Amino acid sequence: MNANETAVIFIEFQNDFCKEKGKLYDAVREEISRNGTIENAKTLLQSARKKGCKIIHCPFTLDAEWVKDKESEGILRGISDGRIFARDTWGHQIIEDLAPADGEVVLVGKRALSAFSHTNLDSLLRFSGIKNLIVCGFLTNICAQATAWSAYDLGYHVRMVSKACGATSENIQNYVEENICPILGGDFTVENFEKEVL
Amino acid sequence: MNANETAVIFIEFQNDFCKEKGKLYDAVREEISRNGTIENAKTLLQSARKKGCKIIHCPFTLDAEWVKDKESEGILRGISDGRIFARDTWGHQIIEDLAPADGEVVLVGKRALSAFSHTNLDSLLRFSGIKNLIVCGFLTNICAQATAWSAYDLGYHVRMVSKACGATSENIQNYVEENICPILGGDFTVENFEKEVL
Amino acid sequence: MNANETAVIFIEFQNDFCKEKGKLYDAVREEISRNGTIENAKTLLQSARKKGCKIIHCPFTLDAEWVKDKESEGILRGISDGRIFARDTWGHQIIEDLAPADGEVVLVGKRALSAFSHTNLDSLLRFSGIKNLIVCGFLTNICAQATAWSAYDLGYHVRMVSKACGATSENIQNYVEENICPILGGDFTVENFEKEVL
Amino acid sequence: MNANETAVIFIEFQNDFCKEKGKLYDAVREEISRNGTIENAKTLLQSARKKGCKIIHCPFTLDAEWVKDKESEGILRGISDGRIFARDTWGHQIIEDLAPADGEVVLVGKRALSAFSHTNLDSLLRFSGIKNLIVCGFLTNICAQATAWSAYDLGYHVRMVSKACGATSENIQNYVEENICPILGGDFTVENFEKEVL
Repeated sequence: MNANETAVIFIEFQNDFCKEKGKLYDAVREEISRNGTIENAKTLLQSARKKGCKIIHCPFTLDAEWVKDKESEGILRGISDGRIFARDTWGHQIIEDLAPADGEVVLVGKRALSAFSHTNLDSLLRFSGIKNLIVCGFLTNICAQATAWSAYDLGYHVRMVSKACGATSENIQNYVEENICPILGGDFTVENFEKEVL
Repeated sequence: MNANETAVIFIEFQNDFCKEKGKLYDAVREEISRNGTIENAKTLLQSARKKGCKIIHCPFTLDAEWVKDKESEGILRGISDGRIFARDTWGHQIIEDLAPADGEVVLVGKRALSAFSHTNLDSLLRFSGIKNLIVCGFLTNICAQATAWSAYDLGYHVRMVSKACGATSENIQNYVEENICPILGGDFTVENFEKEVL
Repeated sequence: MNANETAVIFIEFQNDFCKEKGKLYDAVREEISRNGTIENAKTLLQSARKKGCKIIHCPFTLDAEWVKDKESEGILRGISDGRIFARDTWGHQIIEDLAPADGEVVLVGKRALSAFSHTNLDSLLRFSGIKNLIVCGFLTNICAQATAWSAYDLGYHVRMVSKACGATSENIQNYVEENICPILGGDFTVENFEKEVL
Repeated sequence: MNANETAVIFIEFQNDFCKEKGKLYDAVREEISRNGTIENAKTLLQSARKKGCKIIHCPFTLDAEWVKDKESEGILRGISDGRIFARDTWGHQIIEDLAPADGEVVLVGKRALSAFSHTNLDSLLRFSGIKNLIVCGFLTNICAQATAWSAYDLGYHVRMVSKACGATSENIQNYVEENICPILGGDFTVENFEKEVL
């Protein structure tokens, strides 16, 4: 993979997921620790910066503009009811360890499972000549997977760095590594990234 | 749910999945039998016809027009290499038990995980005034789930009828029922459909 | 038209188009004056606020993130070469007369002819229950028309308020009023808006 | 332009536009004759075949599946009311002079102004490695222009072959040649195509 045709997307490394008082921290605390999610994501970010890959930070934003939130159900309803990732709150902020640097993209408007839904992500990748998308973040089996699937359907060469993702249980994490990564073409590690992106 | 705002989509009930000599039959044979997938889908189809729901048949089509198939990888590469669901073959045909009737939509061009990718499904639903999408078919945890997720992100009220879906193992089927259906708002049975769609 | 199903979009009322030292001012100066474009847009905005319509401000943004701008041609190349509407410049700012109020949408990322391209405009309208889109702004026969056409194709009921638009010549303005507005369903005035949106 | 990165799209060369008894023939008869539209399109098709470009035939289809046609207005309402381009009618057929050959794409489902709306055209071009789109057909200032604009917004290099298009008047044809083609990057002739596509 050519570094200048490769983007890395960091999904929802926000305080609400990653920090002690975050609203969803308890749900992922064990898996974050077991996988070394944050450390792996940091290494990945540093490596991507050195190689000159396109770097995309992708927070979830609960947003009052979307007036029909009251009609939503399932997980998005839970986020809405819990005021998780609410705009201008501490929980919404990207953690310092993975803070965006100048010139890096902070994707605006993710409010669904896939980072491609309701955002300009596909346009951005396409106009930037990106062919490969490396995915990490939360939750392994929901937003990270949904984003990887969208990218796959759109024709990008896609890899999930599963150890830089976080799920709510080891079983679920294993499920994705064993059953979903192969669908896309294989699992991927920080070491693969180091070696294969040039 | 109002019947005239409800569509039911039948994903990949094709010979290659459902019939003895189908190329993927062995992979799903046990789960089809355990779930009663085909029988449940038949009951669902009959009920949807009686109620006047919009009915959408959604075969996968391997299609030589897409010249870059050679570059694909993962599951789509497997389908391409195995000539599964190839246009104008027996394996591509929808099974007789679920044969489309006049006036029902046969969605053209599904060639990715989600039935929304590269097709006019969203346009069709939108222009038909559909708010609710009921999903069944193959594989539970891949194309059926990917289609349900896309619909969810697009704002449709979506339900997977998991017992009218088929996976490659009981573990995977259970994973979807326990971990994915709740994300969307809940699991759904043929009986739910009978009672709740009016 | 119900006011709560109606959005009004104000396209590119930015200093570069509307103000004496704006880079494109000379191109539209005469037509702005002849049509009373700014006054009509102000009246429209006040009326839309009173009625409780969804209000969308839509600036064009020249944006260094899009690395392939160097490959573009035609009008987008001209904008790029001239550094028109460049982010964080005076020319990019929306004019004071039409400054966004709290709670109004400022659409992010318009960088093509249609305001729907590369933005979340369709998602925003759809999730807000909008059925009618009222269009005004610059240029009558390019971005305003392209936006109206996209909306029409997407199934919205759409009207251009031509007298709140601006073109580069009277001939072109007349062309749109006579040949394009009827395609969409008819021309529309500020008076129509007052009377028909309730 | 590399021939294998170039597609040519033939928009609505159907009996209803091009033939004596076609429902829209009288509207374009004079301009077809003045421009030599059909002859130019034939030459373009033959040349594109020789060069090995991707060839896309794009009929408009009036389609009963879209149940809300009754709510449409403007030009699409006119088409619907007049049963123009109705599926399975003579008027819907592509004219013999430009009949699709084996292996050429016949785009399914165009039912709006732009050929990109509600079809898989963008997917098809993208997965086929197409960078350049050459546009011809009907009407010069509506569907041909709308398709060219969509392509431009999507980042394709696009050219309208205006003399292989047809409008309802010479004034309108001139308007597009003088005001719209330059926006996209310039007008284009069959001769340009012969020389520049290699």
